[in-house]
Amino acid sequence: MNTFGTVLKMTTFGESHGPALGVVMTGVPAGLHLHCEQIVQDLTLRRVGQSHVTSARAEPDVAECLSGLFRGKTTGAPLTFMVRNCDQRSEDYPEGLMRPGHADFTVQAKYGIRDHRGGGRSSARETVARVIAGAVARQIVPGMRVFAYTSALFETIIEDKESYQWDERESSIVRCPDAAASQRMVASIEEGDSVGGVISCWIHGCPLGLGEPVFDKLPALLAHAMMSIPAARGFECGEGFGAARMKGSVHNARNGGTQGGISNGTPIFFRTAFKPVSSIGIGGRHDACVIPRAVVIVEAMAAWVIADCFLRQRMAIL
Amino acid sequence: MNTFGTVLKMTTFGESHGPALGVVMTGVPAGLHLHCEQIVQDLTLRRVGQSHVTSARAEPDVAECLSGLFRGKTTGAPLTFMVRNCDQRSEDYPEGLMRPGHADFTVQAKYGIRDHRGGGRSSARETVARVIAGAVARQIVPGMRVFAYTSALFETIIEDKESYQWDERESSIVRCPDAAASQRMVASIEEGDSVGGVISCWIHGCPLGLGEPVFDKLPALLAHAMMSIPAARGFECGEGFGAARMKGSVHNARNGGTQGGISNGTPIFFRTAFKPVSSIGIGGRHDACVIPRAVVIVEAMAAWVIADCFLRQRMAIL
Amino acid sequence: MNTFGTVLKMTTFGESHGPALGVVMTGVPAGLHLHCEQIVQDLTLRRVGQSHVTSARAEPDVAECLSGLFRGKTTGAPLTFMVRNCDQRSEDYPEGLMRPGHADFTVQAKYGIRDHRGGGRSSARETVARVIAGAVARQIVPGMRVFAYTSALFETIIEDKESYQWDERESSIVRCPDAAASQRMVASIEEGDSVGGVISCWIHGCPLGLGEPVFDKLPALLAHAMMSIPAARGFECGEGFGAARMKGSVHNARNGGTQGGISNGTPIFFRTAFKPVSSIGIGGRHDACVIPRAVVIVEAMAAWVIADCFLRQRMAIL
Amino acid sequence: MNTFGTVLKMTTFGESHGPALGVVMTGVPAGLHLHCEQIVQDLTLRRVGQSHVTSARAEPDVAECLSGLFRGKTTGAPLTFMVRNCDQRSEDYPEGLMRPGHADFTVQAKYGIRDHRGGGRSSARETVARVIAGAVARQIVPGMRVFAYTSALFETIIEDKESYQWDERESSIVRCPDAAASQRMVASIEEGDSVGGVISCWIHGCPLGLGEPVFDKLPALLAHAMMSIPAARGFECGEGFGAARMKGSVHNARNGGTQGGISNGTPIFFRTAFKPVSSIGIGGRHDACVIPRAVVIVEAMAAWVIADCFLRQRMAIL
Repeated sequence: MNTFGTVLKMTTFGESHGPALGVVMTGVPAGLHLHCEQIVQDLTLRRVGQSHVTSARAEPDVAECLSGLFRGKTTGAPLTFMVRNCDQRSEDYPEGLMRPGHADFTVQAKYGIRDHRGGGRSSARETVARVIAGAVARQIVPGMRVFAYTSALFETIIEDKESYQWDERESSIVRCPDAAASQRMVASIEEGDSVGGVISCWIHGCPLGLGEPVFDKLPALLAHAMMSIPAARGFECGEGFGAARMKGSVHNARNGGTQGGISNGTPIFFRTAFKPVSSIGIGGRHDACVIPRAVVIVEAMAAWVIADCFLRQRMAIL
Repeated sequence: MNTFGTVLKMTTFGESHGPALGVVMTGVPAGLHLHCEQIVQDLTLRRVGQSHVTSARAEPDVAECLSGLFRGKTTGAPLTFMVRNCDQRSEDYPEGLMRPGHADFTVQAKYGIRDHRGGGRSSARETVARVIAGAVARQIVPGMRVFAYTSALFETIIEDKESYQWDERESSIVRCPDAAASQRMVASIEEGDSVGGVISCWIHGCPLGLGEPVFDKLPALLAHAMMSIPAARGFECGEGFGAARMKGSVHNARNGGTQGGISNGTPIFFRTAFKPVSSIGIGGRHDACVIPRAVVIVEAMAAWVIADCFLRQRMAIL
Repeated sequence: MNTFGTVLKMTTFGESHGPALGVVMTGVPAGLHLHCEQIVQDLTLRRVGQSHVTSARAEPDVAECLSGLFRGKTTGAPLTFMVRNCDQRSEDYPEGLMRPGHADFTVQAKYGIRDHRGGGRSSARETVARVIAGAVARQIVPGMRVFAYTSALFETIIEDKESYQWDERESSIVRCPDAAASQRMVASIEEGDSVGGVISCWIHGCPLGLGEPVFDKLPALLAHAMMSIPAARGFECGEGFGAARMKGSVHNARNGGTQGGISNGTPIFFRTAFKPVSSIGIGGRHDACVIPRAVVIVEAMAAWVIADCFLRQRMAIL
Repeated sequence: MNTFGTVLKMTTFGESHGPALGVVMTGVPAGLHLHCEQIVQDLTLRRVGQSHVTSARAEPDVAECLSGLFRGKTTGAPLTFMVRNCDQRSEDYPEGLMRPGHADFTVQAKYGIRDHRGGGRSSARETVARVIAGAVARQIVPGMRVFAYTSALFETIIEDKESYQWDERESSIVRCPDAAASQRMVASIEEGDSVGGVISCWIHGCPLGLGEPVFDKLPALLAHAMMSIPAARGFECGEGFGAARMKGSVHNARNGGTQGGISNGTPIFFRTAFKPVSSIGIGGRHDACVIPRAVVIVEAMAAWVIADCFLRQRMAIL
């Protein structure tokens, strides 16, 4: 499946070393005055080549709108954006090589054929399409603010606070809003091996009543979304795994913004764990640490989930 | 949404204190000789009243097959099972009460109406339908074995081992296969507060190539499934949150059975964290600890995910 | 697929000679005060044994509500109804027989197994579940009125008029509102062979703007719905096949209630052609003419389509 | 909804006067050696400007593959094609004008906003995307041949024969394989008004067992597909509306290739009626008669339906 969402759906297409990547969004309501600057900003935040801790591949990532906009507003028609690939170096990816820890072996087994160049469809480059979609989703829910940051990298962990600011995060090349911790995190990366980490995310302004009581609980949809990001290995919301070590009398007041799978109007909080990338020492260009760039992908997917639930909720009551 | 799955779909229906609960399964292939003993066994494992650590509600949970079977085999038609509710005590649930930590408040806000009796649709009783579906799913994938157990309860944690046996688990009333740890876990519960915990799950015999490369990665589908279980707060696969504290040179060999979101033929391993239940001291009948009963629900949902992916895979190659 | 609808979905289950038939409806908005008399009335209209032109099978068709209602109102949870089968005579359907024109041969080929008793899942008895769903759908769209009648039977054809009344229709055992034509139709049936016919349907009060501009045009959804009724062979809306013989200057004013696939606020009109049933002289109990009973099935499916589009439309505009 | 299909899905995007149109196909099995000549040929057949009976808009319609192909074979990833718009003359479409019989009024009512240029998303130009998809679908089902032709135009009607040939059709500018009738049809168009017509279609080589017994009967899916083509007003399969005037003893042997909604291995036959286009005398460029170009669109949509059912059938039996 290359589609995510229930009534607000994004279908992404494109391979790492193919001609282009893109996303078709259906279910975007008509009449939204789309601020394309948000797309430009989010793509910039995601883009590689920003610092010495990220990949050297230098893609301009210019998104062209192919459909669905008329005089700056959405029309209800599919909203499509495309980004051309420019800086492929396919010769870096020898055909026979099956990189350990990557999708190379399993994709070949699944499909009997594989576009080996740069990881093909399984490349993290696919997330450029998700980031565009996320920039649209942020604008669908009035008053919603989705904010993620690096909360752990290798052995450095910071306390999670609602009060962290965008500027604090962006002043750190690992997107950690705690300056001292950020320095230790950068030092970990500079040791030369890849490292794992955790991204925390707060959603403010999520309307009350989103999510479904049974299978599509809001935390379940967020978990699906987060675990679909390359290299994600774990998800928790509210107290998460910590709740497993608690007694009920202690836990009851801490719900992470949902009760029974439905948003309760307070801020939603969740964390996603990422493994260290597997590409170290293999060839090709890639990140020593995906976490800084994944921060904006986490935000994009979270925004999409909330926007989808926001539209679904319109049908809940007669 | 009350449906789970992509080509193999279960739709569950029913409320805790309504006339009946049930499940309609579509996409079950024709020609499966269904062993209904598996359904009986799994319902028995899930059922309350098994020990002093679980709820006192005593439902016989007899599943009646309404459609889709002919002479013991599936026909390709919807496979439907229904379980009558017998032992409701609705008067235990005063109408105006909004139990903290429960779905009471959010369901009311979402729908503007609420069947307050026993938690209505949000009750864990809904999982009786999932357990039936899981018992069917186990039989769809040849050679698959899904096995879960309690690996942590409050402050007691055991090491995860592939070698744990069904008998070891079932000799423990908290479904922990380590006897010494099991005793400490029971002691935690007997202290009178509710406690959280972790359920670990191994899937052996999952065919190579299941899961999709982008949004429907196998760990993402499992995360969705697990986080939809009442009281779940966290999910991790393979090394999970531990991977976030690793370097790539250490992590590479540990993939938890998937690479790039697709099964690689080795055992799949994941863990789900549950919060302590919120019902302590509120009235009504409920469990001091949901973990023991949730073990079979984890297995059911995992089996459904794999069976769904197994059928989807039939369309992957020309 | 045993599910129909996009956001308002009905999943039907059950076989002609199995224990029960039923329908699970998801997406029904909460807060609808459900008039169950409508279900009783529509089931009565559909039921066999009403006259000498319909089947002798005498089912009481009592619908039991299993979930989704609380104090007479929908709760947003799955709304489930079940009807027990009582009057099966399975011995009338010899196992090896493949009745010509029926699904017997193709179902066996498709699934490799077949519940031969009374047509199993392919029996028109499945439509009892659709009629229940239709009775609910009628109540979702305020001010909507769906009215169908027999407009042709064998060689008798009547003119289509918006002004036909329910009483005129129900005074005819073939549900033809023109008394003289009705007599000729009955005479056709009494000749002993099965006969085909046409059902016309008007939808008044369909809100403006329903239907989608591309694949899910309102006439396309209605066509899908109608052609899924057993024995349906043709569908037309507005001028239909007549339009193919027209010039544009004549046709332009006649649009059948939709333009570009979207409702325009005027009455919607469509016709569905049914073949003569294939069961004559084969054994078992069945109708000499399905048309009279199919009238209420046409209405049910049409109401479902409009109600589904009505709810979808809530997401069209920001 | 801008997506068609159940497991094989096409999502089309683009407006008549936007930058581009395109289609993302998901569910295309991996390993298909794609003959792109089929796409070129079908686009050529669909293209305007072929004769004096079709529109003067001259689009080259060059399809660029954006994703999903590797060394000429499908990879299982989304298969995406894009066609740039080149020859728009948006000034021909005054903004305030609501063309009678068109989607102009209803789209404005539905979305509150409208890309008025050339009909926007509702333009028949969208079908360029469907034709590309159809050219792929033709190659998925081994041995399938889908062949459509003009069987009626205004008052000229020809007999339907399985034996009509491609060359006979293509020697007629109205795509009618009967030369004498073709001449009369052309004469009808030259009278200056727009005219309606009927397209007949034969599917040879459809495997036995495709289609579902209840809602997704093969004729229901074909009806949905055909009625989603701009200007379609009616659909019939097998004897269609003619069956309504038959007795069972006459009809039984004529099933149009399906029984109980499932293909029986014999050729499938259906007809689609189109109204006369509404654009005559309004301005802009358009066809006096859409039928000749719609022939290839009918084929494309039919091929997609069969290919989708073909892949679904892989899951029917254990």
